[in-house]
Amino acid sequence: MDKRKLRAGMVGGGIGAFIGPVHRMALQLDNNAEIVAGAFSRDPEKSRQSGAQLHLDPQRIYHDYREMARKEAEVPEEQRFDFVVIVTPNSTHFEIARTFLEHDFHVVCDKPVALTLDQAKSLKKISSDKNRIFMITHAYTGYPMVKQAKQMVKNGELGKILKVVVEYFQGWVPYRLQGKVQGAKTWKFDPQVSGKSLTIADIGIHAENLVRYITGLEIEELCADTTSFLAGHGLEDDGNVLIRYKGETKGVFCASQMSTGERNGLTIRIYGTKKSLAWKQEQPESLLIRDLESFDTVLYKGGPYLHENAKAASRLPGGHPDGLIVAFANLYQEFFQAIRRQMGGGNGSSGDFPNIDDGVKGMSFVETVLESAGSDNKWTRLKM
Amino acid sequence: MDKRKLRAGMVGGGIGAFIGPVHRMALQLDNNAEIVAGAFSRDPEKSRQSGAQLHLDPQRIYHDYREMARKEAEVPEEQRFDFVVIVTPNSTHFEIARTFLEHDFHVVCDKPVALTLDQAKSLKKISSDKNRIFMITHAYTGYPMVKQAKQMVKNGELGKILKVVVEYFQGWVPYRLQGKVQGAKTWKFDPQVSGKSLTIADIGIHAENLVRYITGLEIEELCADTTSFLAGHGLEDDGNVLIRYKGETKGVFCASQMSTGERNGLTIRIYGTKKSLAWKQEQPESLLIRDLESFDTVLYKGGPYLHENAKAASRLPGGHPDGLIVAFANLYQEFFQAIRRQMGGGNGSSGDFPNIDDGVKGMSFVETVLESAGSDNKWTRLKM
Amino acid sequence: MDKRKLRAGMVGGGIGAFIGPVHRMALQLDNNAEIVAGAFSRDPEKSRQSGAQLHLDPQRIYHDYREMARKEAEVPEEQRFDFVVIVTPNSTHFEIARTFLEHDFHVVCDKPVALTLDQAKSLKKISSDKNRIFMITHAYTGYPMVKQAKQMVKNGELGKILKVVVEYFQGWVPYRLQGKVQGAKTWKFDPQVSGKSLTIADIGIHAENLVRYITGLEIEELCADTTSFLAGHGLEDDGNVLIRYKGETKGVFCASQMSTGERNGLTIRIYGTKKSLAWKQEQPESLLIRDLESFDTVLYKGGPYLHENAKAASRLPGGHPDGLIVAFANLYQEFFQAIRRQMGGGNGSSGDFPNIDDGVKGMSFVETVLESAGSDNKWTRLKM
Amino acid sequence: MDKRKLRAGMVGGGIGAFIGPVHRMALQLDNNAEIVAGAFSRDPEKSRQSGAQLHLDPQRIYHDYREMARKEAEVPEEQRFDFVVIVTPNSTHFEIARTFLEHDFHVVCDKPVALTLDQAKSLKKISSDKNRIFMITHAYTGYPMVKQAKQMVKNGELGKILKVVVEYFQGWVPYRLQGKVQGAKTWKFDPQVSGKSLTIADIGIHAENLVRYITGLEIEELCADTTSFLAGHGLEDDGNVLIRYKGETKGVFCASQMSTGERNGLTIRIYGTKKSLAWKQEQPESLLIRDLESFDTVLYKGGPYLHENAKAASRLPGGHPDGLIVAFANLYQEFFQAIRRQMGGGNGSSGDFPNIDDGVKGMSFVETVLESAGSDNKWTRLKM
Repeated sequence: MDKRKLRAGMVGGGIGAFIGPVHRMALQLDNNAEIVAGAFSRDPEKSRQSGAQLHLDPQRIYHDYREMARKEAEVPEEQRFDFVVIVTPNSTHFEIARTFLEHDFHVVCDKPVALTLDQAKSLKKISSDKNRIFMITHAYTGYPMVKQAKQMVKNGELGKILKVVVEYFQGWVPYRLQGKVQGAKTWKFDPQVSGKSLTIADIGIHAENLVRYITGLEIEELCADTTSFLAGHGLEDDGNVLIRYKGETKGVFCASQMSTGERNGLTIRIYGTKKSLAWKQEQPESLLIRDLESFDTVLYKGGPYLHENAKAASRLPGGHPDGLIVAFANLYQEFFQAIRRQMGGGNGSSGDFPNIDDGVKGMSFVETVLESAGSDNKWTRLKM
Repeated sequence: MDKRKLRAGMVGGGIGAFIGPVHRMALQLDNNAEIVAGAFSRDPEKSRQSGAQLHLDPQRIYHDYREMARKEAEVPEEQRFDFVVIVTPNSTHFEIARTFLEHDFHVVCDKPVALTLDQAKSLKKISSDKNRIFMITHAYTGYPMVKQAKQMVKNGELGKILKVVVEYFQGWVPYRLQGKVQGAKTWKFDPQVSGKSLTIADIGIHAENLVRYITGLEIEELCADTTSFLAGHGLEDDGNVLIRYKGETKGVFCASQMSTGERNGLTIRIYGTKKSLAWKQEQPESLLIRDLESFDTVLYKGGPYLHENAKAASRLPGGHPDGLIVAFANLYQEFFQAIRRQMGGGNGSSGDFPNIDDGVKGMSFVETVLESAGSDNKWTRLKM
Repeated sequence: MDKRKLRAGMVGGGIGAFIGPVHRMALQLDNNAEIVAGAFSRDPEKSRQSGAQLHLDPQRIYHDYREMARKEAEVPEEQRFDFVVIVTPNSTHFEIARTFLEHDFHVVCDKPVALTLDQAKSLKKISSDKNRIFMITHAYTGYPMVKQAKQMVKNGELGKILKVVVEYFQGWVPYRLQGKVQGAKTWKFDPQVSGKSLTIADIGIHAENLVRYITGLEIEELCADTTSFLAGHGLEDDGNVLIRYKGETKGVFCASQMSTGERNGLTIRIYGTKKSLAWKQEQPESLLIRDLESFDTVLYKGGPYLHENAKAASRLPGGHPDGLIVAFANLYQEFFQAIRRQMGGGNGSSGDFPNIDDGVKGMSFVETVLESAGSDNKWTRLKM
Repeated sequence: MDKRKLRAGMVGGGIGAFIGPVHRMALQLDNNAEIVAGAFSRDPEKSRQSGAQLHLDPQRIYHDYREMARKEAEVPEEQRFDFVVIVTPNSTHFEIARTFLEHDFHVVCDKPVALTLDQAKSLKKISSDKNRIFMITHAYTGYPMVKQAKQMVKNGELGKILKVVVEYFQGWVPYRLQGKVQGAKTWKFDPQVSGKSLTIADIGIHAENLVRYITGLEIEELCADTTSFLAGHGLEDDGNVLIRYKGETKGVFCASQMSTGERNGLTIRIYGTKKSLAWKQEQPESLLIRDLESFDTVLYKGGPYLHENAKAASRLPGGHPDGLIVAFANLYQEFFQAIRRQMGGGNGSSGDFPNIDDGVKGMSFVETVLESAGSDNKWTRLKM
């Protein structure tokens, strides 16, 4: 196995961006990868400054991702980057990802991977044809206690899953509408950039992905009620969905960005015939397990009683908070291992990270919610 | 104003019952009322023993509520009880309440007040015709912090209410189905006794009432998905409802008695344009207020900053838990004041306690949920 | 066994008082006792009004406790009260308790039972000579989860107890000093009424009693640092104590009434060789158990897994808060059983309630803390 | 200002170590520094492998820190590392730090900086003589909400500080004694390696530093009771200390590593005349502020209402946990700025990071606690 550091290029994430730096911290955290090139902004000067802050070779700082893809594909293999990280506004994900796949790079892309289900399917086909690995950063699945939850469900520790309640509540939209949030999120109100959905595409698909990651449940049909409470732009800022999963499990799904005072309230509760579990992203290092007749138990990151994959996903002992950057880094570590497996002639297509299948399913969820909401809130079968 | 202790009769609540003793503790807590008669069980011996434990005059212990109503109506006024407390299984509420109203007693009745909307309306008519005061014990509205929440909404402190999320989760059904719960709740699985609804009628209407108490919102239409996960009796043990209130407020409502490990998880979150609030029944003495741009605040029972009605509803200072019996007692105190106002020639029909209107609206909600769930989960306008 | 209601007299607790009404609610909660006489205030008119509110026979309302003791002792036995409840300022406890003991009444007295250790010992001797039952209302020991904790320690579930950390933090002193608290607590600043100690005698002895109740540990020696931060009266409003218990257990004890913002923060943590436990009075219905290598567990009131005495101490199921009045009532229930046992010819001296021994030990603790603090904070052996 | 990446050497932190990787993640997190050399283990092969994992030049991997210091001092300036990071067992800190200072490197050293107060003073003198910057990684001071707390105290928002309660509770000692913890912490039981103190030196000084960082309070005298409950080696695993700060503030300090079930329970409560604050390291992103008469407020990382230095110390928005690695990284960022200021001819001696003065004061605290505990627990003035 090749033990050199993996090399990354980045598109987006220039000075002032929020998520670009998080990706950089995460991918470099364990000293297994480094950024070597980037098109950090369409503004040449801003891109140059951003790259300089990262101590990059000026020759490898671009302002046009197409030029970057083309030129970097010609760099000698021992210097060429292995994968690109796409941290641009939603509307550009599809084209950028396609471009780099076509130049034979592995891809890491922020959610949503595309603006439409068809685009997502198209990316899936290209990445398959090109045998490239495609990771989507549903980073919350990188938390140790989420992995613990997944393993407990898989082991049958909860019994049969009867019901899932997931919610993702933020409150920045009203705040933004008072002109009090600057910067990166402004484009989210623009359908040209953001696509047909604000909240479902922005955070709802994290919640949908989290349910699927932990439980493996697939949606059969759903009934959605979405609202544009505050936005004044026709995009929904709140959506509530009743869900029927295959296998007779029921679901309640709520996503909102108009929930005054909420920070980043992603929570999930799963009720089985034997036990239930509850997890809150804002306090990610504990997992509440409840029982029919016994006391509540609280599992903590770092506990000797955790399943192996949960143990492996922390950097610090129990009681020393790891945080979300480590969750992000866990995704990258899995992605790196997939790349190395493929480099070694093995199979890079699977691994414990969200991939293009998750991207397709996420867009399928978004489009089905919009269709239900747009057709008098009828029960609607999942679009495929 | 007559300052003697008010006198109560009780139907149900014999030895081994759960809610009967709670009513007795609550109504006597402030030393303003006492039980003087009762039909505690249809079993004469059990009723007799129950009454003896309460140190009652053996002449005023019955086993047939009709006999009790008839005989007690003939007791001299200075000994006759003022109101009856009905704590029997659901199916009997209607007949018992009607009987005592017809004998000119004020009535306190456990929820649901009847098995059908029509019955509830009928009780409303009789109590109005007879000018009798009718209280339904939605006791959670008696908590100080619920009163604080109501006042804050009323004062506009939250701005316009955009969305309400209410849930009431219990987990005793699976436990019961393993034969591990004895006693009072067994009849709840029997549609002959419980009515057409298990969970919505048992606890869902508490949640519906809580929303209405705090916000004053009226339901316009709803879409419900109910499930009989575990019961094996055709009654629902889980129901999730999307709600549209009049005035463009949206709602999410979840009630469940199959949620493994949950105790008595009634929680409400209300999102306004200025602030949001969250309250949890299991920790009833605090109220979380969140703001668009400011820090979270936590209000506590006993705080000098509370509204007057919230202050008046506690017995102990902050940090000394009052508990649910005090919330119950607060309802009774308001009910007593209404009785005394009427005795004094004033108006007894209103007051800060849940009355027969709440009973009608609760049954309206139950029937609308069942109708939506039974008609392919269509959006359904509130039955009137 | 005599199943009539027990009868109580009360000294103190007139209109406007805080703790008097709590005692009345608690002693009457389970319908086993009632107030029949009282001297509610030294002001005749105020006492009369207070008694009238309680619907008492005007002949049995007094303003002089000596007169009350003398006259009530002559009331026919079938009407005479069985026990007196003393809820007056600290300085009067001793004389009132002695008076009623000498007239052969059982006694319930608020803490501290006296102003000095010698007085407490004197009361112990009199109650023993007179064979009267003496309860001191350390009400926190009436909570179900405190009883659970006691039983777990007794059963060895924690292993050997190594260390106890107890704290009781209130914040009303600075608030009071700004003139913002009215009423009952004013006399607490007056050494003539309150005695030599403010905070240790007022709340510290609750904390000391709680440790002793749960663990059975006896203090060997201690080192105390007390401070009069704010009071301007020479009484301490804060005290911190290092403790050595017999048997090599260590303790940390903190009590304070100047801790800005604290409501009624009584908490205890007990560390054993196998497990530890933590309990917080402000959330009294849960008990945190931690383990060397296993997950945390949280036990709840009402759980089927609790020890029998913890189960027996609740009125409502899990998730329905009982509150402090129920804890108080639990003490009274145990006290009543002791009285009935004695009436039946059995032994009334023991029972699961705090008695005059606890009163003596509490005063012993107060005097030892003051001695250590007053002698240059030296380590001081427990006064006996 | 020189904008190149700063270069680091590391001593200790080889494969299997706990804190070494944390330092590496933290110092590289913001892409401003990199490891270029190291002596990761005294075992040459282990050091080589550790360095290879970090992709280091084999020429710059050592197994003897003296050789490393000597050789690296001769490396051309444009490749020479700027500072050394010392993450070895306690007993070696002093010699290693001295060695690198004498070779003119800046130093980052884990706590405790030395085994004795004299050694710490000696390091202070050398670093001053050599004009080298010396950081000690009391990382908890890097959390945003700790910086917020410091600023609030400084601004007088709490009023005069009356009392501080700090505790640091861990439970790994009993676990370790059952042979269940492997690896790095074994040497902590060996006085030859660990020094005269186990718990006070290992974690107590973090707590002491935290108090000083937030409040600026200096200890006048203290009374300590330490215990070796479980260790079987003569080192204390528990220590409780009553403290008198200069200016009439009182303190309670508890540190323990035998507290079964505790993970990393560092908490601080500060009571002022106007407000109080409470912070818990295990939930580091919130800060509880309490008031004499107003509601509780909870401040969160990322809030627009925070002081500037608290805002600047986060990488992610509110509700997205940053974790301890970010707190560590905040220390490094301040340290880097000091280095760059000095490179630019400015003053590198101050900055918002713990420095050698903190090291001296920490050792002063350790020695004073041991002296008090060893002299019959007498009140003892802080050693200077």
